[in-house]
Amino acid sequence: MRTLKLIIQYQGAQFSGWQIQPEKRTVQGVVQEILRKILDESVDLVGSSRTDAGVHALGQVAHIKTKSRMPMAKLHHALKRMLPNDISVIKISEERETFHSQKSTKKKTYRYWVWNSSIGHPQLAWMSWQIPTPLNILKMKKAARYLVGTHDFMAFRAADASTKTSVRTIYKIRFRSQLKNTWAFSFFGKISGQFFCIEFTGSGFLKNMIRNIMGTLVDVGREKIPPEEMKKILLSKDRRNAGMKVPAQGLFLVKIDY
Amino acid sequence: MRTLKLIIQYQGAQFSGWQIQPEKRTVQGVVQEILRKILDESVDLVGSSRTDAGVHALGQVAHIKTKSRMPMAKLHHALKRMLPNDISVIKISEERETFHSQKSTKKKTYRYWVWNSSIGHPQLAWMSWQIPTPLNILKMKKAARYLVGTHDFMAFRAADASTKTSVRTIYKIRFRSQLKNTWAFSFFGKISGQFFCIEFTGSGFLKNMIRNIMGTLVDVGREKIPPEEMKKILLSKDRRNAGMKVPAQGLFLVKIDY
Repeated sequence: MRTLKLIIQYQGAQFSGWQIQPEKRTVQGVVQEILRKILDESVDLVGSSRTDAGVHALGQVAHIKTKSRMPMAKLHHALKRMLPNDISVIKISEERETFHSQKSTKKKTYRYWVWNSSIGHPQLAWMSWQIPTPLNILKMKKAARYLVGTHDFMAFRAADASTKTSVRTIYKIRFRSQLKNTWAFSFFGKISGQFFCIEFTGSGFLKNMIRNIMGTLVDVGREKIPPEEMKKILLSKDRRNAGMKVPAQGLFLVKIDY
Repeated sequence: MRTLKLIIQYQGAQFSGWQIQPEKRTVQGVVQEILRKILDESVDLVGSSRTDAGVHALGQVAHIKTKSRMPMAKLHHALKRMLPNDISVIKISEERETFHSQKSTKKKTYRYWVWNSSIGHPQLAWMSWQIPTPLNILKMKKAARYLVGTHDFMAFRAADASTKTSVRTIYKIRFRSQLKNTWAFSFFGKISGQFFCIEFTGSGFLKNMIRNIMGTLVDVGREKIPPEEMKKILLSKDRRNAGMKVPAQGLFLVKIDY
């Protein structure tokens, strides 16, 4: 048996998320079926993160255990040929038997993109959430600082989630904007500061945690609540105090470190 | 009567092109109907370029003649509120009575994007055409030079087109790549030279002209035909000699100069 690691990219719009579900089009379902055809063997594609419907990935990681002796290059070539255009396996490698996409995880990075303008941007709508009113980024940064570190993030966990513990560690929250010349998408040549993302790096994230945190940060940015409120919401461990769950299309699973 | 000029951006995937057609979702149809509701008046939205189904625009220009005295800011605000997320009116201004989106045109710029890699890119698939085998860009540039200037482009015109003359002037063809750090879309941080566009600026373009030229340039890039063949194809004025019409999603109407 070989243990193979796959790095997978996908555009989330046409999927009901990563996890296989009957009657639904899922990333795991599509890739697993194609692998079964290529390897002529039923394999379990074990993904690191179960991304929600609509969420994208630049660097999802998954592993399979297979009896097949097929060379990596041949397997990769077959995948390139057979995958639909909203999924791509960008790298495939053989790992030690102990590698596990979920258990071997050291940290995960996600990004959420915001288009902060009253004028919609059709070329960015698929990958961002439009907020028409100007956001106070300074206040958002102030609020975000309360979330860094090891905390019980119960207040930002989906009500229907069920994990042993809701304690997680956020190593870093970084505000980034694509200020460089992005003439590919813009009539004006530059998109400017209105197009930015918030990048979260942590030990792992609870169900809907980033999207719920984003909703709360946006409330701070809209000056609905002061930055200090974030600390109170966190300590309350009560989902009802946090902001709304923001739309899925702005979220990217960027990479997973092992 | 006032003459208003609109600069319109759209993501072409969910439209049957610019031009209004019965029973079809078109950009002109959607915007015209929304204007009718806002201005309470039937207006003709006259677009500069009739982009095909699937083609995108960063800077389409259209004009209307209206009796309405509504201030520009109010009209723009109403448009922002009512437009779907795949269309955006980025600017609206009052022009002199003699302004005409089609007749006042000085030059038009289009771009066609190519993703030249055997590994698909799900985040770029909506806006580019994937060509798995490496292209010889030098030869493509050589071939493109034969097209610059005033020529009869009959060989690149759609068979079912009907304009008075097929003579047009291409002022410039420019190969550009988004080599800068495009970390927003890439696991690797950079997308590199595999993601490039060919930018065409001309007096005007015949039906399918750019897409047919692209198909021929790609034949040169694949080394199916030598660069000099482009000159022969041009002079033959025979559509059957040119390459295939490339997919619509890679094409952007970038801007129109007046």
